[in-house]
Amino acid sequence: MAAPSPGYSVTIRLKTPAGFSVTSEVVAAAGQADAQITAVDVVESHPDSMVIDLTANTSSPDHVEQVTAAVSSVPGVEVEHVSDRTFLIHLGGKLEVVPKLELRNRDDLSRAYTPGVARVSKAIAADKSLARNLTVKRNTIAVVSDGSAVLGLGNIGPEGALPVMEGKAALFKQFADVDAWPVCLDTQDTDEIVMIVKALAPVYGGVNLEDIAAPRCFEIEARLREELDIPVFHDDQHGTAIVVLAALNNALRVVGKKIEDIRVAISGVGAAGNAIIQLLQASGVSHIVAAGRAGIVARDHEHSDPHRKWIAEHTNPENLTGTLSDAVRGADVFIGVSAPNVLTEADVESMADQAIVFALANPDPEIDPALAAKHAAVVATGRSDFPNQINNVLAFPGVFRGLLDAGVSDVTDEMLVASADAISGNVSDDQLNSSYIIPSVFDRDVARDVAEAIVAVAHRNGSADTTAERTAR
Amino acid sequence: MAAPSPGYSVTIRLKTPAGFSVTSEVVAAAGQADAQITAVDVVESHPDSMVIDLTANTSSPDHVEQVTAAVSSVPGVEVEHVSDRTFLIHLGGKLEVVPKLELRNRDDLSRAYTPGVARVSKAIAADKSLARNLTVKRNTIAVVSDGSAVLGLGNIGPEGALPVMEGKAALFKQFADVDAWPVCLDTQDTDEIVMIVKALAPVYGGVNLEDIAAPRCFEIEARLREELDIPVFHDDQHGTAIVVLAALNNALRVVGKKIEDIRVAISGVGAAGNAIIQLLQASGVSHIVAAGRAGIVARDHEHSDPHRKWIAEHTNPENLTGTLSDAVRGADVFIGVSAPNVLTEADVESMADQAIVFALANPDPEIDPALAAKHAAVVATGRSDFPNQINNVLAFPGVFRGLLDAGVSDVTDEMLVASADAISGNVSDDQLNSSYIIPSVFDRDVARDVAEAIVAVAHRNGSADTTAERTAR
Repeated sequence: MAAPSPGYSVTIRLKTPAGFSVTSEVVAAAGQADAQITAVDVVESHPDSMVIDLTANTSSPDHVEQVTAAVSSVPGVEVEHVSDRTFLIHLGGKLEVVPKLELRNRDDLSRAYTPGVARVSKAIAADKSLARNLTVKRNTIAVVSDGSAVLGLGNIGPEGALPVMEGKAALFKQFADVDAWPVCLDTQDTDEIVMIVKALAPVYGGVNLEDIAAPRCFEIEARLREELDIPVFHDDQHGTAIVVLAALNNALRVVGKKIEDIRVAISGVGAAGNAIIQLLQASGVSHIVAAGRAGIVARDHEHSDPHRKWIAEHTNPENLTGTLSDAVRGADVFIGVSAPNVLTEADVESMADQAIVFALANPDPEIDPALAAKHAAVVATGRSDFPNQINNVLAFPGVFRGLLDAGVSDVTDEMLVASADAISGNVSDDQLNSSYIIPSVFDRDVARDVAEAIVAVAHRNGSADTTAERTAR
Repeated sequence: MAAPSPGYSVTIRLKTPAGFSVTSEVVAAAGQADAQITAVDVVESHPDSMVIDLTANTSSPDHVEQVTAAVSSVPGVEVEHVSDRTFLIHLGGKLEVVPKLELRNRDDLSRAYTPGVARVSKAIAADKSLARNLTVKRNTIAVVSDGSAVLGLGNIGPEGALPVMEGKAALFKQFADVDAWPVCLDTQDTDEIVMIVKALAPVYGGVNLEDIAAPRCFEIEARLREELDIPVFHDDQHGTAIVVLAALNNALRVVGKKIEDIRVAISGVGAAGNAIIQLLQASGVSHIVAAGRAGIVARDHEHSDPHRKWIAEHTNPENLTGTLSDAVRGADVFIGVSAPNVLTEADVESMADQAIVFALANPDPEIDPALAAKHAAVVATGRSDFPNQINNVLAFPGVFRGLLDAGVSDVTDEMLVASADAISGNVSDDQLNSSYIIPSVFDRDVARDVAEAIVAVAHRNGSADTTAERTAR
């Protein structure tokens, strides 16, 4: 059974006889049922009875039932209600749209709305570039999904995707003061998605594509980048690539290898795998072998998918063929963005000395990290319950903060590499070890450093819009 | 020259010699140039010099220049900077997207985002109706415009429309706690707009169409109402119709006439005129004559526009022809939603005794209200600087509060009439007189009363979604 997690936190309201002993019995019963108790609150107390809220982390809906049964078996105890805290915090949604100024009186109204607003509208109509300063476009991005590849849940549609996009928007605001709005589209047609995002663009200073299935995501991103004058960033690709490169930088510091010299095996050739390959190459990695479900991607195969064809032509210099095991043998680095348990202990054992294993499939990694650690020098996953969590939250808030601050219209590889360097630079030599190659997602400096790195690249390349920076947010 | 307004408020920063007399001279100079001074702040004071911010309402950009010239002509005074307060409050936009819960630690993150959010997403994917409770859809509407008919500015495009839609969203939040998001579309194609709004609908609990040119707005609204399961409301039509009916109810109380008996002349057969005609008829008005630019709309003319044809078939029982003057003669009520100065004093004089004149063209009404008041018993405009301002702000926030609370999918005429009654009911017999037929836009009870009226209608008709009401926002 998985460990209890706050994602499955429940509050069980119980009516009990009065007295200390019954509370202890309830806590003991829940503990014996493997609940991780986080709080016991007395809600009401009467001479003969009490109402108690027992809050606990559990590991699954079945586990909730087991815990509930265990506490209700204590003599005299009745279960009144079981509330799921994760659902409770979702009631009514996770975002609000709040005016930045209060409209208290006629004067406020006449400046923020009619008649004053007409002058602002006229000024923007005469020079559209003013919208970057005088409207929400200055600080707002769209988080766009068609609901086709949401988390590990697959094609659950736009309504199901909405809580995820709201959560993402909350992270943008909290970590980088970026206003992000969920755009969950009730279409999975590439042409329609491109047309819609273009039509929505006047309101936004950037577009974060999210959880759109491959290969559709590649075409959507490429066309929007071509046709829009605001930056477009597919987080599943580039956000992942940035944090992988950041973690790799520091893992290489731990094992004392140079990025130019390493052999990298990648499992997974979807959105993330493609972007990781491109970013590693932009960072100087020359030896990459990628494997998909059908095994190693090699030049002598037929590839109808142009992205697969690109990988075949640009990786695998020795033209290896075979399975993932063949790709991994002798490699310095394994990067998995694929599926649970595709890597064996023997595979890790077959890697080069001081091997690095990033098993990022979520929620279940390519290999149990404890197993991998028996043979590898550095192991990282996407999970929060092991050391070295490689999490996009380290990248995307700062990336868009930087893109908006610089007012650029294009995201470049140089910006992605600089973002990765900013993240890895947040782990000092004093802090660095095989269990700490990447900063905590709650490290507030990271987003700022990533943003500054992007602004610096934009300035170096002359792509920064200096009007945008002149204006306070 | 128009009166100075806070919509043209400026702050002029001046460097002056030290001393009281120069400040008085500056104030006097600005006053002589007809500035309405609202503040004089000393920003810096030195033995020999001072820096002063003079804040004043002006009436136009030209007037700003005149005032600036006047103060700079005071001996020793230098103008350092002129800031336009209306533009200042627009810097960076007027809205923020704010998380309703803080993500302080790992537990918060695991409930609001992965892994906890996955359970919420799965539940919604299995039953889409849960999105009304577990996402922003519960309390959020889209404010949709194509920028084709913005305020009195015409077709200024989506970027120019954005400050208006942001202002509208701010009003929704402030007056009715409705989260509203601006959707300014870079297309004016009816089919594309319909397709886009349908694709965006998963995120929203309602659609407020805004500033879309007629006749396109009619088709867009009709098709969206047909195809969406959330309420669609074109504020320029129905919001205007509600406040006109509310004002008319009370004007009739003042003059002691019954709605069934009155003769109404309407100037303007665009979006607002159409909706007003329909709502007046739903309220029992049987005698309406409408006039457009080409004169009275009558049955024996050819009407290629189906909406014009509908008006011809459903109004003008005596089949009058001629100009607006012919429509107005003998009428009890004039309602103008057209253009400046189309109604003459002689026209008002030709109306029935105890006439009612609503001259709502903005910013310049169909007739100077002071002129109209010489012959009419009740006069109202859309302007804030005369009594009886007929302003949609009285309607739209409460309407959507009610629609969201009731969880209805359709807006009915009965709801519009009930909304108007709720607004007029906010003027008690004690308060009612010819200069107070409609509550102030800052009357906080109005939105609540409108919302309750809509919920009551929904309950009566069985169209309320009781799930929506069960859940706290």
